[in-house]
Amino acid sequence: MPTRFELANAIRALSMDAVQKAKSGHPGAPMGMADIAEVLWNDFLEHNPANPHWADRDRFVLSNGHGSMLLYSLLHLTGYDLGLQDLQHFRQLHSRTPGHPELGYTPGVETTTGPLGQGLANAVGMALAERTLAARFNRPGHAIVDHHTYCFLGDGCLMEGISHEVCSLAGTQGLGKLIAFYDDNGISIDGEVEGWFTDDTAKRFEAYGWHVVPGVDGHKPDEVKAAIELARSHDDRPSLIICKTIIGFGAPNKQGKEECHGAALGEDEVAAARERLNWPHAPFHIPEAIYRSWDARERGAAREADWKTRFDRYAAAYPELAREFLRRQKGELPAELTSEALIEQAQAKGETLASRKASLNCLNELGLQLPELLGGSADLAPSNLTVWDGAQAISAGSSTHPAEGSPDGNYLHYGVREFGMGAIINGIALHGGFIPYGATFLIFMEYMRNAVRMAALMGLRAIHVFTHDSIGLGEDGPTHQPVEQLATLRSTPNLSTWRPCDAVETAAAWHVALKRHAGPTALVLSRQALAHQPRDQHQVANIERGGYVLKDCEDTPEAILIATGAEVGLAMDAATELEARGRAVRVVSMPSCDTFDAQDAAYRQSVLPAGVTARVAVEAGHRDGWYKYVGLDGEVIGMDRFGESGKAEDLFRHFGFGVDNVIVATERLLTRRAA
Amino acid sequence: MPTRFELANAIRALSMDAVQKAKSGHPGAPMGMADIAEVLWNDFLEHNPANPHWADRDRFVLSNGHGSMLLYSLLHLTGYDLGLQDLQHFRQLHSRTPGHPELGYTPGVETTTGPLGQGLANAVGMALAERTLAARFNRPGHAIVDHHTYCFLGDGCLMEGISHEVCSLAGTQGLGKLIAFYDDNGISIDGEVEGWFTDDTAKRFEAYGWHVVPGVDGHKPDEVKAAIELARSHDDRPSLIICKTIIGFGAPNKQGKEECHGAALGEDEVAAARERLNWPHAPFHIPEAIYRSWDARERGAAREADWKTRFDRYAAAYPELAREFLRRQKGELPAELTSEALIEQAQAKGETLASRKASLNCLNELGLQLPELLGGSADLAPSNLTVWDGAQAISAGSSTHPAEGSPDGNYLHYGVREFGMGAIINGIALHGGFIPYGATFLIFMEYMRNAVRMAALMGLRAIHVFTHDSIGLGEDGPTHQPVEQLATLRSTPNLSTWRPCDAVETAAAWHVALKRHAGPTALVLSRQALAHQPRDQHQVANIERGGYVLKDCEDTPEAILIATGAEVGLAMDAATELEARGRAVRVVSMPSCDTFDAQDAAYRQSVLPAGVTARVAVEAGHRDGWYKYVGLDGEVIGMDRFGESGKAEDLFRHFGFGVDNVIVATERLLTRRAA
Repeated sequence: MPTRFELANAIRALSMDAVQKAKSGHPGAPMGMADIAEVLWNDFLEHNPANPHWADRDRFVLSNGHGSMLLYSLLHLTGYDLGLQDLQHFRQLHSRTPGHPELGYTPGVETTTGPLGQGLANAVGMALAERTLAARFNRPGHAIVDHHTYCFLGDGCLMEGISHEVCSLAGTQGLGKLIAFYDDNGISIDGEVEGWFTDDTAKRFEAYGWHVVPGVDGHKPDEVKAAIELARSHDDRPSLIICKTIIGFGAPNKQGKEECHGAALGEDEVAAARERLNWPHAPFHIPEAIYRSWDARERGAAREADWKTRFDRYAAAYPELAREFLRRQKGELPAELTSEALIEQAQAKGETLASRKASLNCLNELGLQLPELLGGSADLAPSNLTVWDGAQAISAGSSTHPAEGSPDGNYLHYGVREFGMGAIINGIALHGGFIPYGATFLIFMEYMRNAVRMAALMGLRAIHVFTHDSIGLGEDGPTHQPVEQLATLRSTPNLSTWRPCDAVETAAAWHVALKRHAGPTALVLSRQALAHQPRDQHQVANIERGGYVLKDCEDTPEAILIATGAEVGLAMDAATELEARGRAVRVVSMPSCDTFDAQDAAYRQSVLPAGVTARVAVEAGHRDGWYKYVGLDGEVIGMDRFGESGKAEDLFRHFGFGVDNVIVATERLLTRRAA
Repeated sequence: MPTRFELANAIRALSMDAVQKAKSGHPGAPMGMADIAEVLWNDFLEHNPANPHWADRDRFVLSNGHGSMLLYSLLHLTGYDLGLQDLQHFRQLHSRTPGHPELGYTPGVETTTGPLGQGLANAVGMALAERTLAARFNRPGHAIVDHHTYCFLGDGCLMEGISHEVCSLAGTQGLGKLIAFYDDNGISIDGEVEGWFTDDTAKRFEAYGWHVVPGVDGHKPDEVKAAIELARSHDDRPSLIICKTIIGFGAPNKQGKEECHGAALGEDEVAAARERLNWPHAPFHIPEAIYRSWDARERGAAREADWKTRFDRYAAAYPELAREFLRRQKGELPAELTSEALIEQAQAKGETLASRKASLNCLNELGLQLPELLGGSADLAPSNLTVWDGAQAISAGSSTHPAEGSPDGNYLHYGVREFGMGAIINGIALHGGFIPYGATFLIFMEYMRNAVRMAALMGLRAIHVFTHDSIGLGEDGPTHQPVEQLATLRSTPNLSTWRPCDAVETAAAWHVALKRHAGPTALVLSRQALAHQPRDQHQVANIERGGYVLKDCEDTPEAILIATGAEVGLAMDAATELEARGRAVRVVSMPSCDTFDAQDAAYRQSVLPAGVTARVAVEAGHRDGWYKYVGLDGEVIGMDRFGESGKAEDLFRHFGFGVDNVIVATERLLTRRAA
């Protein structure tokens, strides 16, 4: 039997060899955390290498994602479909071992990490999803949802603000099955952290209500094992195990220094480490006995088989629940979902109301039909209008955490924690069983910005409700008024962004967002009331295409007005006036540029015919993004400076969003053309 | 003599009356914190209402900026140039009392607040600037820089992650003259915070090394006063005074509830509050005796006069230091600054090097000439290349904070705290005496995004070094590779963004950034080496215009290639090849779109003549922003999906950034035109 030290050294060797071969990467963290990982994965982690998607597996998150070779080594050693040749192509284009763990590239990678702090937040989301799903589906004697979430993290994660947001919330929520390991190695990229990071981390986490196991020697397996057992025994609070480690452990000249953090050790140091670790094997060679000790396939298959047996018993006792569980696991919408009917209802009602209110109307219907909707807001529920009639707060609901709500709720009060919300939402989506939505003001999308990007990168179905979408929010002023935020959202690959112009488009946006499995959707909604726009059935059907002709003229139009959101009403009024003056004007409503751009050329051409070059785009956001539709010959009525504090109507006038201005711009184009 | 209670009630009355008149705003915080503010402003705050710019004034920051009427009331009552009619126009367009405190709108407002947590971060930056400036300029017996920074904050600020980042750093730095007041009222917008915010905040701040005064009754002036005295006596650590308060104190039916947080109380409740507070005066009427007690003009003038006398003595003893102090206070660059020469030097050397390295070369010269440069990086110094030869770490340098460095340093190791860095930089710029620069990877600009926006909104001279600017960073992969970030920066009003193509343009960008007083500059730099581009003196001079002809053809060009950064070299190579094929091609280097857009029409026309519509833009960033230059007839070679992990050269090829592709795109346009 190999010793634990030898098992851990397999990680160290693979990590330093792969980084050395790539001449790029981070050997320090894998070598420093190898002993901890060995204990966790061999003695505790419940997983099945043959099926990385087993619903009740423990989740493992490497929040310090630069240490990706730690995870790849573990996956390889325990028997996932990740071969030596994969490790040998570490960090190469088209390999399954990219520089940071990337969801979908490597079997067993639970989330994409690298942007520090967010993996920890994902883990909080996963643990919350686990508890909420368990509360909904488990029955006495039938614990079909019962797994832990383990998270590795470093100094960087703990310095990041998001660690505060999510650990504070995890404490309040009492997420007892979340166990985090802090790699307390005293080193970050700038050098020894004592110059910039002197927190008493144990005390900090106690202040959050966590159970803390301090002072563990991260190179002593017995201490690590005892700490994990202790952490698992505290199931009313999340646990933080603080492990003192030596970064790059085993590299005799570089360990404990920044040098081994983010660069290959060099041939000489790799050789010296082999010596120091008593690891005589060639690069990428793992002795058979060590493979055998690591191999988790048999154990994993048995575990999943046991779970399946238990699930069958559950299904026999609660057939409807079991079906529902499986449906939610697959992410399938209920066959009888009537989200499309919401569009028709809105069309029939023809109400003038704020799109945030129209969104709430949708939620009131969807919430009843979609128990997997897991909502929330970063302390702006009464403004975002995300608390639907059936919303119930999620809380630990225990005697130690007596706040209102219950573990079987469907709405999370995230507190004033936008970034945390965004990354927790990603964790919930990653876990499965839910369609999470969250909300804040559009401007505070910026606080959570990188989490929205990560959802797009990972292709997660998450829905972001961003209200108060322009100067139309009024008196709160420029700190709260978006200008450039739509440009950010629209230029994010794989994010679908909708800015509906009325209740009908809002319902269509919700409908499309729910159907979208491959990535997140941003719903950009108004604070102020928006007039209903008249449409025939054909136009209603075209909303889903992202842009469509909302108002047309008899012949070929002389000019096209393109607008979104509140400004569609303005364009419509201007078009009516221009028509009265004898102009042939078309109005295009463009709630989703990315969706429109994805339509076939013929459809796009039918909406924006190449021959009509007199085009005016109107949007109370930054101009630049609109030239791709209006070209060098067109005009954009937009914002190129910050807003002001004042009444919405005063601001629209002040910044040039009036019917007169749209008419003047259009006439100017037509006159120029005539000249 | 009015009682303290009556003095505080003047704040309450003005606040509830102004919000009521505007029918918009936040009465809760001003009414809850009135007693604390009264003690601080009347008994401690050193300021001169007649001169809000007095260098040695205490700084006061309202981090919970939605409570703006608290600040406006204080400024009005103590004698700033802010009349009753200003308060009566609260939240109206063009008033001096916008919804949130806005720098430059109201005398005495030190920073724009509203986005939660950032005011606190600004305060940390101010306190750090104070200490660093004091360390540089004070001499024994001559404490010409010696003031406190006071900050009010609420639950929202403390939930935000940025509060963790900056308070952790403030603790490590031992900023003893920073005193924060936590308005512990138990209420946020979603309701009673106990459902989502249960931190032991005292313990949390002790974990950061702060001095905490817990359990102060925020409505008992004696307790508040004693707490402030205690806080001031601890000058080796920042202090947090935790004040239990009742939100909306005095509104009998709404106090202590979310109802009074963000909406006018209503006529009836305002009347009831008048009764409860025993405040019989008409709306906006303040009795003369109360005005007299609040009036800080005489005291303030005496204080500043005393400081002036002391400064004159200092100037007599240290004339050179005094001149330097005044220069730095004014934000004037030294007359002898040779930043322009850096451009010539780079031009003469003609080196091929990464623009991050070219930037370091600039810093090595500029650092020597500009002692006001206060640098830093969010734990990426060795990657960002921001530690110039003369950089010295800033630290408390005391026996309780023994880390390396000294209070008289010029470089801050921010730790892995991007957002904190951004908002601390804003605080340093607001304080005066420094030109702060900070650095991170361009992708992690997103973590600090809203602080960059706030710098632009406030018009602060701050310089952001964003390195690793595209897929060209290689193996770290899509989590680290910017795609849409340039679009975000470029659509931010009043932010100047530069992406230089070689060392010459990098030097020009630094030169322009330093000269820019009205707002921040983002320097977007490469990890990889960039070839030197040949230029004549005229072209060198034109770099400052943001876009210019880098390579031209004999006659009118058939096509124009527009590029930035690393892709300029690519465009140049393609142009050479196209030329060899007999095509007349111009190459425009466009390091700064915003700067180019600000040039007169004749210049822009000379670079991009309207007649030449065959235009190809090449940039390894999102396409959308480039159509404003290439129009509907042009092409953009850009990114519309996320990057990959791999070698830089593999990635450029994979994503279509090759000479061949540029040629194909250009030929396609020219063929289409000919057809």
